[in-house]
Amino acid sequence: MAEHMSQSELDYPFKLLEYFNGFRVSKVIFSACELGVFDLLLRSQEPLSAQHVAQELGTSLDGMERLLDALVGIEILEVEKTDGTALYSSTDVANLYLAKGSAKSLHDMIIYQSQTIYPLWNNMVDAVREGKNQNEKTFGLPAEEVFQAIYRSEEEMLKFMGLMNSSWVLDGHDIVTAFNLSGFQNIVDLGGCTGALAREMAKAYPSSTVTVFDLQQVVETAQKHFSQENDIIVFQSGDFFTGEIPTADLYVLARIIHDWPEEKCLTLLKKIYDMCAPGSGILLVEAMLFENRRGPVMTQLFSLNMLVQTEGRERPPSEYTRMFNKTGFQNIQVCRTGKSYDAILAIR
Amino acid sequence: MAEHMSQSELDYPFKLLEYFNGFRVSKVIFSACELGVFDLLLRSQEPLSAQHVAQELGTSLDGMERLLDALVGIEILEVEKTDGTALYSSTDVANLYLAKGSAKSLHDMIIYQSQTIYPLWNNMVDAVREGKNQNEKTFGLPAEEVFQAIYRSEEEMLKFMGLMNSSWVLDGHDIVTAFNLSGFQNIVDLGGCTGALAREMAKAYPSSTVTVFDLQQVVETAQKHFSQENDIIVFQSGDFFTGEIPTADLYVLARIIHDWPEEKCLTLLKKIYDMCAPGSGILLVEAMLFENRRGPVMTQLFSLNMLVQTEGRERPPSEYTRMFNKTGFQNIQVCRTGKSYDAILAIR
Repeated sequence: MAEHMSQSELDYPFKLLEYFNGFRVSKVIFSACELGVFDLLLRSQEPLSAQHVAQELGTSLDGMERLLDALVGIEILEVEKTDGTALYSSTDVANLYLAKGSAKSLHDMIIYQSQTIYPLWNNMVDAVREGKNQNEKTFGLPAEEVFQAIYRSEEEMLKFMGLMNSSWVLDGHDIVTAFNLSGFQNIVDLGGCTGALAREMAKAYPSSTVTVFDLQQVVETAQKHFSQENDIIVFQSGDFFTGEIPTADLYVLARIIHDWPEEKCLTLLKKIYDMCAPGSGILLVEAMLFENRRGPVMTQLFSLNMLVQTEGRERPPSEYTRMFNKTGFQNIQVCRTGKSYDAILAIR
Repeated sequence: MAEHMSQSELDYPFKLLEYFNGFRVSKVIFSACELGVFDLLLRSQEPLSAQHVAQELGTSLDGMERLLDALVGIEILEVEKTDGTALYSSTDVANLYLAKGSAKSLHDMIIYQSQTIYPLWNNMVDAVREGKNQNEKTFGLPAEEVFQAIYRSEEEMLKFMGLMNSSWVLDGHDIVTAFNLSGFQNIVDLGGCTGALAREMAKAYPSSTVTVFDLQQVVETAQKHFSQENDIIVFQSGDFFTGEIPTADLYVLARIIHDWPEEKCLTLLKKIYDMCAPGSGILLVEAMLFENRRGPVMTQLFSLNMLVQTEGRERPPSEYTRMFNKTGFQNIQVCRTGKSYDAILAIR
């Protein structure tokens, strides 16, 4: 008998059926987001009928009604009946996280998950069988060129960057304050993408200089689509695998290592080690597995995500520590945040 | 503030992130099922290493390890460490519902959801926009010919029939005992597919004759792949829309009405009404919505499923009652089972 699934689950598998419906629940939220439901409800100062929503968003009434009702069922929206008409309104959670323009919007994360990750996961059986990503089967792109696949068009690059951006809007502050980094004057975020994490860093440590280092096309897209007036960070372009990396007191590697097989990670870590003066180091940010393999579930799912999309994996802290030691870093501290991402500070 | 999502969800959206991961959880279970993980663990009398499982099932070790760990994370499998090796074993729930040969196996339901429904739901945005099914976009088949799409190949027909079959293995007994049907001598299950529900009926009411009436190709496939020695039911082929239907005391319509628009449903109900002597009637079986539109969530999701795959919808009992009244049935009783499917008994 399972420890956690009760006798009642043997009588009738309610929990299992909920798991089977997981993809439907995801797609209900994703579809509403793509159609602009949460944006409309946030803009509206009053509850709206399904007919009103359908008309504004150019959808069928029938389909919109079913979608809105399912969103009520999972408690993302509210419904009340006035004069026999059902009127829908948003919850604070939807306004904060699901509407496009809100302070903590996860809109871009959702778009990427719905349009890119969901189809990739349709080939998970093959990913497990072959032990490699399914970019070729899903999108017709070679498995070996992970970022050629991820950046396969300007639109896809923009979507991926949106994913990263909204992810750090959510988790960035916890990550940059996991350790006191105020002693580092010159911080370089390697593969820093849109600069969202770097900006959190610059906000938390206003006397430090924070630089985003990324591929030229990424830097150009970041400056075109994610730039801010009077930006508190700077951008520098280059390739940290094939080119030189700038000098710094602290290198940030946030969700970089998990894209690659160990050998490539060790090469990169060694290259950074060689740039570090004593007292300098790396802030490594990843979702980290428990040492006992039993979770966190989200990280285990991320690790399968890495299988189906990249050449990497999620790892427990001990594996990062081993890689750090192997490349020369000796002073290593681990911080679990209890949220999606954790941090390790490794000093030379 | 949402009634049900708490303040802590505003601080950090754990529940939302879980919803976003829903499709991943579904695909973890579905993939393990497709690869035969649960069958192997059931056959094995002892816990197995990831290496053993990967070798037996012809998959990569790396991919299998990640899949097994995720299954532990969602408490479908158990893991223990012996001499540093992780050994995986099944839970009773997985043995009962996820292994292929088990008494209550949902294996075939999973295969259909994974291979047919999951890709359909990738086009949910278009389904809501257009208010019609996405068989054309997903599989290149015309939207108007729902069952030509569902039965588009022998393989697909077999998968669909497997879905129906495993569904009644789970819910059939509760449905046939929702009302005391022992007074009906001659029961015909219209669109009865593999006969799984009809067999539950014949078991519960051994003095009744139970006939499955379905399209010729369905009956042939049922007899070829789902027949039983000394079967307690009989099969008869025909088309209940275009041809004659057999005489009976009780007609079963289980998940038939939800495939079709109201006009077509009314035509069918009227046709059956005309065949009914006073005291005869229909047992209608569907997942039924609450009248207040707030649930059940599973039924709301099914209704979106009907949108993306058929011409129908899920309805609350009041709508079925209205359709029954409109076609002449006056004596109507509703039974909610509290599980996936509910029943209405309508007598002429």
